[in-house]
Amino acid sequence: MQDLEADLVYCFKDAIKFAKKGQFDSFLAIGGGSVIDTAKAANLYLCHPENDFLDFVNAPIGKGMPVNRAVKPLIAIPTTAGTGSETTGVSIFDYEPLKAKTGIANRAIRPMLGIVDPLHTLHMSPRLTANSGYDVLCHAIESYTAIPFQMRDARPLNPNLRPAYQGSNPVSDVWSKHALGIVAKYLKRSIEDSSDLEARSNMHLASVYAGVGFGNAGVHLCHGMSYPISGLVKSYRAQDYDVQHSLVPHGLSVVMTSPAVFRFTAPACPDRHLEAAKILALVLITGLKALGYITDDIPALVKGTLPQHRVTKLAPAGNPGEEELARLFEESMTVY
Amino acid sequence: MQDLEADLVYCFKDAIKFAKKGQFDSFLAIGGGSVIDTAKAANLYLCHPENDFLDFVNAPIGKGMPVNRAVKPLIAIPTTAGTGSETTGVSIFDYEPLKAKTGIANRAIRPMLGIVDPLHTLHMSPRLTANSGYDVLCHAIESYTAIPFQMRDARPLNPNLRPAYQGSNPVSDVWSKHALGIVAKYLKRSIEDSSDLEARSNMHLASVYAGVGFGNAGVHLCHGMSYPISGLVKSYRAQDYDVQHSLVPHGLSVVMTSPAVFRFTAPACPDRHLEAAKILALVLITGLKALGYITDDIPALVKGTLPQHRVTKLAPAGNPGEEELARLFEESMTVY
Repeated sequence: MQDLEADLVYCFKDAIKFAKKGQFDSFLAIGGGSVIDTAKAANLYLCHPENDFLDFVNAPIGKGMPVNRAVKPLIAIPTTAGTGSETTGVSIFDYEPLKAKTGIANRAIRPMLGIVDPLHTLHMSPRLTANSGYDVLCHAIESYTAIPFQMRDARPLNPNLRPAYQGSNPVSDVWSKHALGIVAKYLKRSIEDSSDLEARSNMHLASVYAGVGFGNAGVHLCHGMSYPISGLVKSYRAQDYDVQHSLVPHGLSVVMTSPAVFRFTAPACPDRHLEAAKILALVLITGLKALGYITDDIPALVKGTLPQHRVTKLAPAGNPGEEELARLFEESMTVY
Repeated sequence: MQDLEADLVYCFKDAIKFAKKGQFDSFLAIGGGSVIDTAKAANLYLCHPENDFLDFVNAPIGKGMPVNRAVKPLIAIPTTAGTGSETTGVSIFDYEPLKAKTGIANRAIRPMLGIVDPLHTLHMSPRLTANSGYDVLCHAIESYTAIPFQMRDARPLNPNLRPAYQGSNPVSDVWSKHALGIVAKYLKRSIEDSSDLEARSNMHLASVYAGVGFGNAGVHLCHGMSYPISGLVKSYRAQDYDVQHSLVPHGLSVVMTSPAVFRFTAPACPDRHLEAAKILALVLITGLKALGYITDDIPALVKGTLPQHRVTKLAPAGNPGEEELARLFEESMTVY
C-alpha cells in the first residue's frame, strides 16, 4: 500500500488506464488512503474518457472542472485508521512536476459505501497507528477551526461550482468535536497495545467521524503545508514502513507543523483552539529538523504550499503569504 | 398549531382527505411537530390510496406494514425547537380509541429538506421553550441510552421490515451526545431570555441534532409512557398555550417520568447514564401529581404504555411489564 506513495501520479495513471481498458461497472478499494484515492480517480476518469488528467485536479495546479456525470459505485474498506477517505470526495496524489501532493476534490467521487471493520486495523504497527492517528487529530482540529462557511470568499450561486471544502459549519462541527474526544481518549492506547480492540475500534470510528467532518468543512494549513513536506522528502526513512524509498508518512507530515499553525490561527477563533489545545499536548514528539529538513529547504516548502488554495484559504487567520508560511515552517523545525 | 393536538387523528384524516382531493405534487409544512407529522401522513396516504389508515400505523395498534412506494417531496420548516420532526421518519398522533398517542414510523416519510431558521423560534414563550427543550433533552438521553443496535431482538434480513428505530449505534451516539451538550449549555438561557438569539439558535440546532440521533436510534420509556399521559389528560391546562382544551404539552409529558425511568434503566448501562445525569438535574421542576394525575390513574397509564413496543422495547433494562410500569408511574407522581 505504502509503495503507492512513491510516485502516486504514475500509479493513478496506470489505474486509470487499467479501468478504461476493463470498462468495469463497479470498484472495490481495500487499503489505506492511497488505495481508496486511486480507485476514486480511476472511477472518475473511466466515466469521463474525453477529459485530460488535469481537468479535474484542484486549481491552480489543475483546472478544477465541475463533474456533471455520475460515476460507478465504489465500495471502500479502509485498513488504516487515519485517512477517512472512505467518507470523502477527495483524492490526493503526488504531483511530480511540483514536488508536492495535490488532488481532486469533488463530492461526485465519494464512495457509495464504506465498510469499517476494526479487525482490519489490528495489523498496524505502533508507528503506523500513531501516524494515522495524527492525521485524524489534525482532520478534527483543522476542520473545527476552519473558517465558518458563511465567511468564505467564493460562494458561487451554482452549487456545482462550490468547493467540496465549504468551511466549518454546524454539521461538520458535530463530527469534528466528537472525533477529537475519541482521539483524546484512545489514540495513546491504540498505539501502546496493538491488541486493544476497544481502542483500535474507537480510533477506526474516529477516523470515519473526522472524515465526515473534514470532508464537508475542509482542512487548512497543516494539510496544505504537509503536501510539500511529503513531496520534497530527501533521505528520511519512515520507521516500520515496508518501503524501499524515502518517505515522510502523511500523518507525520501533517502533525509536524500543527503547533506553529495553531499558534498562528488561534487568535482568529480562540475558543475553538482552546478546546483543542488540551489534546494536542498529548501527541507531539519532534520537529521538521528531525525529519531531515534544514532552513535552506524553506523556500521550496513555501513554494509547494502556495498553490494549495483548496485548503490554505480555509485558514481562519487569513490565507498566509510567502513570509508568513516561511515563518510557520521555521517554527516547525523544532517543535519542542 | 397546538389546536391540532386536541384530536389529532381527526386532523390527520382531514388532511389526508384534503391531500387526496388536491392530488398535490409536493408538501410544505410550517409549524411544530404536529404540523410536520400531519403533512407526513397526508403525503403517505396520498401516495397509497388503496391502504386503510391503520395499515401503516405502528404495531400492535396498527399493522405496521412496510412502505414500498416513494412519496412526494416534503419540505419542513420547524417553528419550535423540540420535536426534530423535520429530520425523522416518525409521525405521531392521538389515537382516540386507546386514549394514547401512537404513530407511523418509516424512513419513507422523512422530509426531503428541513429549513432550520432560528428566527422562527423567537416567538416561543418561556414555557413553550422549556417544554420543547425538555423534549430535546429526552430525545438525546433516551437515544443515547437505548439498547445497542446489535442487541435488539428483531433484526429482519429484509431491510424494508427493519424498524425505523434501530437502537443506539455509533452514528446516532455522535448526534445524541452533541445535542445533550448544547442542551446543558443553552436550554436555561433560551428559556430565560426570549431575545437571546445565540441560545435560541443553539437550541434549534440541538433539536435537529437530537432528531437525527433519535430518528435513527429511537427513544424508549419516557416517550412510551408519555403517550398515555397526554392521551389521558383530564383538566390540566398548559400555561401559555393558546388552546381551549386540557393539554399536557408533549415535552412536559415526556420529561415528567424521566427521573424514574433513568433510575430504572441506569443499571443496564451506568456509564451512559452518568454522563447524562449531570444535565438532568438542571431541568426538572415538578411531578405527574402536579399535572392532575392520581394513583388511581396508574392502571390506565400502564395500559396505554403497554402497546408502545416501537419504543418500550428499546429500554436498556428490558421491556418492562405491567408491574414495573406501574412502579415507574408511581415514582413519577412526585419527582421532587
